[in-house]
Order: sequence, then structure tokens, then C-alpha cells
Amino acid sequence: MEIVFIAIGCGLLAVLYGLFTARQVLAASPGDATMQAIAGAIQEGAKAYLGRQYSTIAVVGIVVAVLVALFLGLTSAIGFLIGAILSGAAGFIGMTISVRANVRTAEAARTSLQSGLTVAFRAGAITGMLVAGLALLAISGFFWFLTGPAGHAPDDRLVIDSLVALAFGASLISIFARLGGGIFTKAADVGADLVGKVEAGIPEDDPRNPAVIADNVGDNVGDCAGMAADLFETYVVTVGATMVLTALLVTGVDNGFLMKLMGLPLIVGGLCIITSIIGTYMVRLGRSQSIMGALYKGFWTTAILSIPAIYLATNWVLGDMTTVFGADLDGVGGYSGMALFWSMMVGLGVTALIVWITEYYTGTNYRPVRSIARASETGHGTNVIQGLAVSLEATALPTLVIVVGIILAYQAAGLIGIAFAATAMLALAGMVVALDAYGPVTDNAGGIAEMSHMDETVRVRTDALDAVGNTTKAVTKGYAIGSAGLAALVLFGAYTEDLKFYNSALGLTAPVDFSLSNPYVIVGLLLGALMPYLFGAMGMTAVGRAAGHVVKDVRHQFATDHGILRGESRPNYARTVDLVTRAAIREMIVPSLLPVLAPIVVYFAIAAVAGIANGFAALGALLLGVIVSGLFVALSMTSGGGAWDNAKKYIEDGNHGGKGSFAHLAAVTGDTVGDPYKDTAGPAVNPMIKITNIVALLLLAALAHGG
Amino acid sequence: MEIVFIAIGCGLLAVLYGLFTARQVLAASPGDATMQAIAGAIQEGAKAYLGRQYSTIAVVGIVVAVLVALFLGLTSAIGFLIGAILSGAAGFIGMTISVRANVRTAEAARTSLQSGLTVAFRAGAITGMLVAGLALLAISGFFWFLTGPAGHAPDDRLVIDSLVALAFGASLISIFARLGGGIFTKAADVGADLVGKVEAGIPEDDPRNPAVIADNVGDNVGDCAGMAADLFETYVVTVGATMVLTALLVTGVDNGFLMKLMGLPLIVGGLCIITSIIGTYMVRLGRSQSIMGALYKGFWTTAILSIPAIYLATNWVLGDMTTVFGADLDGVGGYSGMALFWSMMVGLGVTALIVWITEYYTGTNYRPVRSIARASETGHGTNVIQGLAVSLEATALPTLVIVVGIILAYQAAGLIGIAFAATAMLALAGMVVALDAYGPVTDNAGGIAEMSHMDETVRVRTDALDAVGNTTKAVTKGYAIGSAGLAALVLFGAYTEDLKFYNSALGLTAPVDFSLSNPYVIVGLLLGALMPYLFGAMGMTAVGRAAGHVVKDVRHQFATDHGILRGESRPNYARTVDLVTRAAIREMIVPSLLPVLAPIVVYFAIAAVAGIANGFAALGALLLGVIVSGLFVALSMTSGGGAWDNAKKYIEDGNHGGKGSFAHLAAVTGDTVGDPYKDTAGPAVNPMIKITNIVALLLLAALAHGG
Repeated sequence: MEIVFIAIGCGLLAVLYGLFTARQVLAASPGDATMQAIAGAIQEGAKAYLGRQYSTIAVVGIVVAVLVALFLGLTSAIGFLIGAILSGAAGFIGMTISVRANVRTAEAARTSLQSGLTVAFRAGAITGMLVAGLALLAISGFFWFLTGPAGHAPDDRLVIDSLVALAFGASLISIFARLGGGIFTKAADVGADLVGKVEAGIPEDDPRNPAVIADNVGDNVGDCAGMAADLFETYVVTVGATMVLTALLVTGVDNGFLMKLMGLPLIVGGLCIITSIIGTYMVRLGRSQSIMGALYKGFWTTAILSIPAIYLATNWVLGDMTTVFGADLDGVGGYSGMALFWSMMVGLGVTALIVWITEYYTGTNYRPVRSIARASETGHGTNVIQGLAVSLEATALPTLVIVVGIILAYQAAGLIGIAFAATAMLALAGMVVALDAYGPVTDNAGGIAEMSHMDETVRVRTDALDAVGNTTKAVTKGYAIGSAGLAALVLFGAYTEDLKFYNSALGLTAPVDFSLSNPYVIVGLLLGALMPYLFGAMGMTAVGRAAGHVVKDVRHQFATDHGILRGESRPNYARTVDLVTRAAIREMIVPSLLPVLAPIVVYFAIAAVAGIANGFAALGALLLGVIVSGLFVALSMTSGGGAWDNAKKYIEDGNHGGKGSFAHLAAVTGDTVGDPYKDTAGPAVNPMIKITNIVALLLLAALAHGG
Repeated sequence: MEIVFIAIGCGLLAVLYGLFTARQVLAASPGDATMQAIAGAIQEGAKAYLGRQYSTIAVVGIVVAVLVALFLGLTSAIGFLIGAILSGAAGFIGMTISVRANVRTAEAARTSLQSGLTVAFRAGAITGMLVAGLALLAISGFFWFLTGPAGHAPDDRLVIDSLVALAFGASLISIFARLGGGIFTKAADVGADLVGKVEAGIPEDDPRNPAVIADNVGDNVGDCAGMAADLFETYVVTVGATMVLTALLVTGVDNGFLMKLMGLPLIVGGLCIITSIIGTYMVRLGRSQSIMGALYKGFWTTAILSIPAIYLATNWVLGDMTTVFGADLDGVGGYSGMALFWSMMVGLGVTALIVWITEYYTGTNYRPVRSIARASETGHGTNVIQGLAVSLEATALPTLVIVVGIILAYQAAGLIGIAFAATAMLALAGMVVALDAYGPVTDNAGGIAEMSHMDETVRVRTDALDAVGNTTKAVTKGYAIGSAGLAALVLFGAYTEDLKFYNSALGLTAPVDFSLSNPYVIVGLLLGALMPYLFGAMGMTAVGRAAGHVVKDVRHQFATDHGILRGESRPNYARTVDLVTRAAIREMIVPSLLPVLAPIVVYFAIAAVAGIANGFAALGALLLGVIVSGLFVALSMTSGGGAWDNAKKYIEDGNHGGKGSFAHLAAVTGDTVGDPYKDTAGPAVNPMIKITNIVALLLLAALAHGG
């Protein structure tokens, strides 16, 4: 049990770090009255949106919690609620910090680039540590309660079901937050650009544009709150699934040892919070003044320090690194500390490579972004064609890395090895989220600098900070979807193990045939592969529709009050924010329910036609279909979108004719297309994959209990 | 044997129909001297391109033929060459007719819409019947030779391997033709548009544009020759795979009965050529003057007449419809005539539904195209976003239709049922290709009318004919990829049966584990799913690069001879054609080799790391991964591209501001983006899927013979 206490301690440390750093950030100067007024409007809008979003989700959440309680019992329902509430809290706290740090970053950027970077990165680090810390606290605290005060054995069904329910709570909130926030931010962004830049010919972030506050609110509720909920979910699901799979797969050991083994992912997560905190203190501009370099110093410090930390943790938990334990599953002949250590090293390696590949595909220094910029010279059409080509191509290297990662981790320690590799990836979540959450703060800081007519040098600094944010945002998405690739295999492993466990309770007479030559497996793969496409279509359409409302509202404001464009009267920002809020909330519901309902519908439909065994086979294949297809859809959308965005930035830096050139116009089109790709549809595929898998696990448990 | 003779007879009938109709088409007036000069330039360019393309492919083909002879023997090599040569012939003949019918269609359109339609559709029908007829002749002739004069039993390994080699020959030529032609046509089209419409501000098909002949050549070598080779391949592979699977799966019957059963797909194909010929005579404008209606009359006549034809053929071949034969495989308890009949009805049903769904997604009368047109009002970005949303959404209904088709056909007659469903789909190929090949003829006719300054009424008529061509072209692609979905399952079935057959020869000690819980299966699925993405990226990039060359060449011509734009001097059309030819041939090689090499590399890589059993598991999963992912990539690209194109046409018809409006400019961008989507990358995915599968089958045979 002391392992779990250490993990809880590390989780609390992360929260303390968050509180301490929040005091530092809030102590910085919030600037003059104009800046504070603008920041106040953004704060108000963000708070109003999140309030509406959470009260809508709460309705769905309560209905689902009741269903969970009915089918799986009260403990699972409590797990569900803990996951849901903390996921929401992670998003809320992140957003709260972010909307206060933006104006302080702008003010600090008056002094120097370093000062601006410090405030913005600290704000990101608070969100990062709170996401990792709260996620770790949720799992380890709940696990402690179940195996301690509640007195269950670690491999008790109730413990397993409750951990899955905890993950479900986190995932369900996360998909709503990702999608709702994603629709909000891109509807506002696209709408503001279309009517502002294109029609009225006013620059980005111009205070005369009624949608400008909504655009800035969007950065906070989408890129910050939505992203935080997403990564919270990824952490809880991955670590939770590793624990569940350990309980299901490692047999022939006593409960005390199993308890330790299930605690290993927790303590690894805990120690990596400490290495992440150390990493945050390394983020400092070097002589080259490279912002990306400064951020990388933090990331690499964390990654490298995590290697000995993971080794020592494994050695301490298991007693030594070489004793083989567990039965001979997967043909790996049992497991050893060294095998698990190597698996986790695979996870770190996959993370590092995905970070590097994503930078290659979205950074302005490399071929992909430059090829899009060059294609912009011949117009809108060729810009988009080249951007789509890059987005398709950008799936190749990450897939190869994941494939090699799967093979190496499996060769080291079988399916458990893949699970521990995924856990090690997520152990770095605190640092990765810190890099990401820094982005919306600098984006907002730039907007505030522009709107409050701060000195041009400030805007240059915030722009430099923001350009890097595009890449770090793409990195997090690649990282999240890459880890989802591994986590989904773990969840599928849990599904097949559960099927074996529940075999007779479900009324099955033989093992389910998951062979590819079973046509119901193919049917499941096809239906699963369809889901990200349908989901993506819904997300893209939603943004288009909501952006259309924004365009109409802004046109109406311009038409009814001619003083707005002359800069004489203040536009009604709140009306636009409110309009986007309503549109985003309305649009997020149906797509979010797709992954919840699809597994249930597919199981019952196929079971009705071809018997329950084929129903379970099709459902299992659906889980793999959704990851096999979702991985590509998400990677192509997030990398492609990032590349389009930075191709525009590259042109704005004076290449291919610079701002206002024909190439720049084309690049703006590409950026607009990339917006819903990278910030709405693409990243939401990640929680979608996980929900589909978790619902399948819960369906099994519910059917077994009822059957 | 008489069954095979009847099939050969029907194949010859199709060729006779082609010759007879070709005389009719050629007897029509080829117009005045100006028109003939333009048509002559197009003919010359198309001939030059195909000549270069075929001589390049011949080099690859001869190398591969030698390899096939070495590893699989001379008979297989002969099969490979027959497939390759006839696939090339189908494309060549189609192109030859098409480049002569274009000018005659323009001339006939002077008289009336009906006259133009008659010439254009007859030209399409020639290509359609020749594709189906030559494909049927190739398989039935080769099968007759193997089982007759050569004296092999129908289920002899040599017969099976040789049929697979025949399919391989057809597929290999087809991917080069599809991709090379696709790159040519879209590089010329995009290049001509960019520098003509966008930069010089001259209309489409303006004779002052040096790329205008290349653009018209592209319609013939891409949409006609490439498409014909593709459908030839689809036909040969599908019918061939059905025969192979029948030989592998139906046990417990004597050779005489097996011979009949393997002849059934041939005779079904033969009879449907007759129903297709009857259908072509039904294509006539009704009172509503609806061109789509006229074409549909032909299609529906063929589809409905095929129902009794298939019933009678099955009854006659098997003697009766109810006797159960074959061992109890797949849990279907043997097969019966009725079961096979119902499977084939599923195939016809899937075809009809895919035609209907494709028209919904690409026709100007329905929501999807109109939503793109409406989104064009707010600019380039929203046009592209909505187009991408439609392209993602357009995968859903066809997938559901295919899934339901798989389930129904499997419930009727197991895996054999799926094979016969695919065969019935392909039986309609003559008619479907006729509808498609009509498109490039009308497209060219419009170009010739414009360039030779014919009367405005002629251009209105050719435009009306052409608009329908966009939809029929999309329909064929949806149909080809849908049938590939079924055919790939058949090929995968053949792969697993082959693995069982060769088990000990390959050095395997146990059945290969194709279960989804084998991580090497997941690895194979992921790598297979990657292939269409990588292939798509290569295709899109190739078009962008080749179009860039066109832009530079045209700019150079305008700059060095100012008389061109003033209409005083004639541009150097041939130089542009030659340039695109070289670019397309250069660009087609690497992507085309991807599906040939990937299965071999993946097998050897995984076998080296994890043993040959896992190598075969990963290879099998690769085959399914490529279809599961390729289906979506191809459907989204072809439907999305068609929708973009028709959204532009819808605006040009006077909606949302009509030609020259802001919405129209945005729609032109969408159309440009859709070009490589729908005519290069998307359709080439179909042969790519099949090649991957066929190479895997050949690899098995080669390893077994060598092992």
C-alpha cells in the first residue's frame, strides 16, 4: 500500500506546485485598464461558456451515472462520477489560469521575450501538472479506497469494473469538452476571419470585429480546457487500463505481489511528475533566443531524468529486475522487472520520436511546411492540394514508429509490455500538456496586445511565442493519438480477457472467433473504420454551420451600427460569444453520442442476425477498426492543420511575397481549412476511440451481470 | 466445357458489337477542317502518351514476367502476359474510339441533343463492351486452354496459380495506366486552369492556352484509357478470384461438376454482356429531355434483365436450384443453386444502391452538392471545409450497403456467396463502363466546340452532356471500389485457403493465428491501412509537381511569344503535351511499385523478427488493412471530388451569383482540389488494393514452390 501512498503524495505535490506557481503568475502585473477590460471580457465569455457546457454535460452525466449504477452497481457509479468531475475540474482550472495569464504575458512581453515566455510557460505548466496530478490522484486514491477501506482484492471484478467506470467518466466529459470547445474555438476563428479579414478587410484581432472576443475565448475553452480534459482522460484510461490488464493477465502470483505490480504504473506516473516539475525549471532562453529550444530543454530534461526514475521505481517495487514472475502467457515466458523497464523505455522512445516527427511535419524549417508555402504561389487550389498531400503523408512515420513500438514492447513483455509502454508515454503528460497549454496563453496575449494598441515590439514578441505554440499544439495531439494507438490495444486486450472471464456468464459456449476469416470480424472492422469518418464529417459540418451564424451576426452588427467599422462605437462582443456558445453546445451532442451508442447498436444488431458469439466478434473488431482508421484520420488532420497554419506564418515572415501577397491569400485559405481539421475533428478522435472501447468493456460487464 | 464455349461466344459477341458500333460512330461526320485539326492534335497527343506509357510499362512487365516464369513456371508467365496485354489493349482501343468520337459528338450536337448523346454514348458503349468482352475472353479462353488442350483438372494448383497470374498481369498494367493517366489528366487540367483561368483570365478550353490540348488529351488517357484498364482488371480479378475460391472451397464434388461450377461466373458474365447490349439500345432521351434519365433507362434495363438471365444460367448450369452440394464449410451446410442466385442478387442490389448513393452525393439536385455551393458564398476556405465534410460523410452509406451485402451474401452461401455477389456486380461492368466512357467524349466535344468557335447552342448541348458525365464518372469509381471491397474479402479467403493448402510446404507447423489478439495481426492491419494514405500522398504530390511544370511552360510560352494571348500566333501545344507526358510517366513509377513491394517487405521483415507464422499473419492482416482503409480513402476522394466539381457547375448554372461571382471563384478552388482527389489518387486505390492481395497470393505460391 505504501506504493499507492507515494503516488498519492506525488499527485498532491503536483497540486501544490500548481498552487505555488499560480500565485507567482497572478502576482505579475495585469497591465493597464484597457488591457484588463479586454481580458475581463475574455474571462467572462470563457466562464459563461464553460458554465453552460458543464451544465449540459451534467445532464448527460447524471443519466449515464444512474445507468452505470443500475447495471454495474454503486461503486462503479462513484468511480464514473470521480472521473467525470475531476476531468471537468482539470479543464476548468486550466481555463481559469489561462484567462488570467494571457494579459500578464502581454504585459510581461513589454519587458522582454524571456519575461513573456516565463509567464506563459508557467501558466502552461500549472495546467500540465494539475492534469497529471489530478489524474494520478483520481486513480491512486480510488484504487486505495477500493483495496484498502473497502477491503477488495486487487483483481476483484468490482475493482476492475470500477476502474473502467472511472475511465469512462473521464472520457465522456472529455469528448464533450474536446468537441464543444473545438467547435466553439473554430467557429469563432473561422467566422471572425471570414467576415473580418476577407469581407471587411480589417486585420486579425482587430477590436472593431465583434467576433474578436469570441475568438480569444475559443482559445481558452478549446485549446486549453478541452485539451486538458482530453489529456486527463488519456492519462486515466491508459494507466487504468494497464492496471486492469495486469490484474487480468498476470496469474500465479499472490495478491500482495499483484498489488505492487498494479501500483507500478502509479508510482512511475508519480516519479515522472517530479521529473516534469524539474523540467519546467529548465525552460529558459539560451543565447540563440530560440523559443522552441527553450521548451525542448524542459522536455528533454524530463525525458532523460525519467529513465533512471523508471528504473529505480521498477527495481524498488519488484525487489529486483531479473526474477521472472507470472504464468507463461503470450509466449513470453513470464515477466521480469527488466522486461517491464524495457517496455517503458519503448514508450519513452515512441514519445520522443513522435515529438520529433511532428515538429518535422509542422515546423517552418522543414520541407512539408515549405512545400505548402511554395504551392501557395500558384493559388488557393494548389495550396490546399499540397496541404492534403502533406496531411496524408504525415501519417506514415508515426505509424511506423507505433508499429515498431508495438513489436518491441510485445517482444519484451507481451501485451503487458504494450500496456507499460503506453503508461510510460503518459507519464510525461505533465510536461507535454505544459508545452501545449502555453500556446493559447500566447495566442491570447497577442490578441490583447493588438486590441489594446500596445507597442509593435510587444506584438512581435507575442507572435514569436505564438508561432512555436502551433507546433507544440500539434505535438500534443500526435502524442495523444499515438498513445491512444497503444492504449486501444490494451483495452482490446482487456476486452478479450473479459470475454474469456465472462464466457459462460454471457451464455457463450466456445471462445469467440476473432479470426480475420470470420466475416463478422470484417464487418466490425469496416463499421469501426467508418466511425472516425462519420465523426469527422459531423465535426467539420458543425464548425461550418456555427461559423455561418457568426458571419451573419457580425454582418448584422456592421450593418446596423456603422460606427463600429469607423472605430467609434463598441461592438456587442457578448452577443457573439453567446451565439457561438449556444451553437457549439447544440452541435456537440450528437457526434459525442456516436461512440457511446455505436458499440451497443452494433453488438445487438449483429447478435440478432448471427448469434451472440458473432455479435461479440463484430464488437471486438469494431474496437480495432476504430483505432486502425482513427489513428490515420487524427494524425492526418492534426499534422495537416498544423502545417497549413505554419505555412501561412512562414509566408507572413516575408517569404514568397509576404503578407498581403497572392501566396498569402492562398495560405490564409489553407489555414482556414486546417482549423477544424486540427482543432475540432482531429483531436476529438482520440477520446472517441477510447469511449468506444470503454463502452464495449462496460457492455460486457453489464451483459454478464444481467445474463 | 460447353459452358466455357458459351462464355467465349458472348465475349466474341461483345467484340463484334464493338466493331459494328465503331463503324457506326466513324461513319458520322467529323466536322469541318478546324475541328478536325484540333481533334487531330488531341489524337496525336493521346497516341504519343499511350505509346510512351506502354513502352515504359512493358519494361516493368517483362521483368515481372521473367520473375513469374522463374518462380511459378511458364504457364503462369503466359497468363500474366495475356492479362497484361489485354488490359493494355482495352485501354488502347477505348482511347482510340474516344479520340475519334469527340469531334463527331461536337458535330452531331449541331443537329440536336439527341444526336450528340447518341454518338457519345455509342463511343462509351464500345469501350464498355470491349472491356467486359475482352476480360471475359481472357479468363474463359485461358481456362479453356488449361482444362482442355493442356489437360489439367479444374482444381489443379497450376490452374489456380495461372488464373492468379492472369489477374496479376491485368492489375499491374491497370495501376500504371490509372495512375499515369490520372497524373497526366489532372496535371494538365490543374495547370491549364491555374495559368489560364486564374493568371491570364482566359476562359476554359480557350485555344490560346498552350495547355488546352494537353487537358483534352488527359481526358482520353486518364478518364478513358486508364479507367478501361482499371475496370478490365476489376473484372478479371473478381471473376478469376471467384473461380479460384470455388476450386479451393467446394470439396466433395467430382471434377465435372466443379468444372461447371467454375464456369458459372463465366456464363453469368456472358449473359450479362447480352443484357448490357440490349440496355445500350434503350438509351434515348424521353419527353423530359433528361440525359441522366436516358442513361438510367439503359442501366436499369440491363440490371432488371440480368435477374432472370442469372436465374436461368444458374438453373441450367447446376441442373436444378435446390440440390445441396459441397461439404459443410463456413457453417452454411453446403451450397445450392438458390443460395448462389440470392448471393448474386445481393451483388446486383449493392450495385444499384451504390449507383443511387453516388448520385445523391455528387448530383446537383441534392443536399451535399448544394451545401458546398452554399458554403462557397463565404469563400474558398468554407467551400473546401464543406467539401471535405461531404467527402468524409460520403463513405458512410456505401460502407453500410457493403456491410449489409457481406452479411446477406455470407448468410446465403458463406464466403462463396460473397464471391458470387462480387461477380454479379462485375457482370454489369459493360454497362457501367459505357456510362463512364461517355464522359470524356463529351468533355472533349465541349473543348473542340469552344476551340473551333462553334455556335453557342452547341456548347450549351455539350455542357449539358458533360455535367451528367461528372456523376457517371463518380458512379463507376464508387462501383469499382465497392466491388473491390467484396473482391478483397474473396482474395483474403483465397489467401487463407492457400495457407492451409501450403501449410507444410511453407514450413508451418500449425495453422496461422489470424486472431485480432495476435499483435502481429494488428501490426499488419496498421501497415495495410497506411498504404492508401501513403499512396494518396504520392499521387497528390505528383499532380502538384507536374502541374507546376505545366504552369512554368505556359508562362514561358506567353512571355516569349506575345502573339499567343492576342490570338495571332499558335501556341506550341505539342511541347506542353510532351512535357506532361514525361512528367506523368516519371511520377507513376514509385507509387505503382508500393503495392507490389509492400507485401513482400512486410512478410520478410516480420518473419525475420517474429517467425514465419507471424510473418504470414501480418501479411494477411495487411491485405485486410489495405481494404479497410482503402475503401474509405477511395470513397471519400471520389465522391468528394465529384461533389466539388458539380458544386461549381451548379453555381455556373446561375445559382449563388453564377459565373464570375465570389462564390464561383471559391467553387473553382474546390473543383481544383477535387481534381487529383477524384481522378488520380482516389480511383487508383482500387487496383492498388487488388495488387497487394494478388502479390501476397503469388508470394505464397512462390515460397511454397521454393520451400
